Amino acid sequence: MTPPANDFPAWVFACQQRIETLLDAILPPASVAPQRLHEAMRYTVLGGGKRVRPLLAFAAAEVSGAPLERVQYAAAAVELVHVYSLVHDDLPAMDDDDLRRGKPTVHVEYDEATAILVGDALQSLAFEVLARHDVAETPRIQLDMLGRLAQAAGSRGMAGGQAIDLDSTGKTLELAELEFMHIHKTGALIRAATLLGAQCGTLDADTQARLDHYAKSIGLAFQVIDDVLDAEAPSATLGKTAGKDAAHRKPTYVSLMDIGAARELANRLRQDAHDALEGLPNSTHLHQLADFVVERNF
Amino acid sequence: MTPPANDFPAWVFACQQRIETLLDAILPPASVAPQRLHEAMRYTVLGGGKRVRPLLAFAAAEVSGAPLERVQYAAAAVELVHVYSLVHDDLPAMDDDDLRRGKPTVHVEYDEATAILVGDALQSLAFEVLARHDVAETPRIQLDMLGRLAQAAGSRGMAGGQAIDLDSTGKTLELAELEFMHIHKTGALIRAATLLGAQCGTLDADTQARLDHYAKSIGLAFQVIDDVLDAEAPSATLGKTAGKDAAHRKPTYVSLMDIGAARELANRLRQDAHDALEGLPNSTHLHQLADFVVERNF
Repeated sequence: MTPPANDFPAWVFACQQRIETLLDAILPPASVAPQRLHEAMRYTVLGGGKRVRPLLAFAAAEVSGAPLERVQYAAAAVELVHVYSLVHDDLPAMDDDDLRRGKPTVHVEYDEATAILVGDALQSLAFEVLARHDVAETPRIQLDMLGRLAQAAGSRGMAGGQAIDLDSTGKTLELAELEFMHIHKTGALIRAATLLGAQCGTLDADTQARLDHYAKSIGLAFQVIDDVLDAEAPSATLGKTAGKDAAHRKPTYVSLMDIGAARELANRLRQDAHDALEGLPNSTHLHQLADFVVERNF
Repeated sequence: MTPPANDFPAWVFACQQRIETLLDAILPPASVAPQRLHEAMRYTVLGGGKRVRPLLAFAAAEVSGAPLERVQYAAAAVELVHVYSLVHDDLPAMDDDDLRRGKPTVHVEYDEATAILVGDALQSLAFEVLARHDVAETPRIQLDMLGRLAQAAGSRGMAGGQAIDLDSTGKTLELAELEFMHIHKTGALIRAATLLGAQCGTLDADTQARLDHYAKSIGLAFQVIDDVLDAEAPSATLGKTAGKDAAHRKPTYVSLMDIGAARELANRLRQDAHDALEGLPNSTHLHQLADFVVERNF
């Protein structure tokens, strides 16, 4: 049965609660040595964020009939990779940002060395969680999920995208080059989140290909809207420093086209995402997430 | 048949050649985007290092009868984690070192942002290698190996040890505190290298416990000798900046006891390692590695 469309906020809230509770349980207590490192890991992971990647994992798991008890660990692993990347991206040598999710960034609240180690340890923890818990129907599928997350996080995925991003600061990129960067920087992990969620259940090749297409479209739309919001919104709404892209002369969708055209592009990508899901059972939350990604104002 | 003792240098060389060839094949080519990141990854991983952790993995694999084709991937994964940790440890916000394995460190040769991303991407690659290749008799054992490596690398292992190390700079530690730090900072990964190598073959619980005891002893002995060499050797022999510990007021075995007493401690740990192997078949190279760790002068 398709749930009514207005259950979406309640579903989002329930997923966010579940992932928050699980992350709290997964992270070592701040009382365990090294205390300061563990405290800083908890500081940056808990109590914030939209949890978009976990939401994608939970929604994709509905399509493949995966139990929540499994998919929550895949969702947590992807979120840990995402949070580690934010901590490192915010470092002075990288984007040099001092505000994230409405709080001082880790190197501001603690120090740079701690921020580096927090990111490093969160990445390790992501793989530990995905290896140590029962997340798939077979260990073979679980290994494939680990390989997928590792590849999405690495030099041909997220870390590579950040390298391209840093390298492109102050340059004028073509639209294709900008897209290439985002497919790596944010797209790879968003695709991994969606596919890992689905891999917790029973997945055929056609459904996997459709979900991958959906996730690619959503990933780009997410980034287009991020650029629009950075150009439009005040920092207080955004929870991070707004207007940074222009200040840092970073190429963005808004620097290549006007805001109206960027929103139009995001809407076309949203439609692609909806089309990719055509005929898939239990995909209501994926559809709603596609709308949310484009319509959000934070 | 026990090989003659003088085959040790040839065996070390063959292992080093094998791991070098494999790492070269595993690392993305410098021609693949993002080129600069891939070039920097290859710069820091290839052409240097004693490869002690791979040697331990190869030697432990002989005890459990694991084929080289399997254990080489486990060895490469552990070495990638080790190299990533060196790149991050050398950063200005951490140990601030500009010489490693006789070459400028990554942040000196490239830049700080690249060094951060190189470390991040090498960690991801380690898990990708261990997940994507056939390293164990069953996928279930392979998952256990992934969990073991992740835990050894994380906040309750290597990254945690580095946090304790940074926190202890300028402080006077008791011997037990110093040992606690090293059990994390270098010991965890040395144990993981040994056990992962053995897990590529057939391993019973008693053998695993003995190998773990061996690796714990070797890990501490390795660090004691590191401290001795830092106090004694010129930088040219060491391939990294010597005398840094004293300059940075880091607690070391040599700051807690004189060099003679430190060497005596290393010898006692070496004897513990030999004793732990008592009666294990095909453990000649493990015995020889225990001697090498204590007798090396680089």
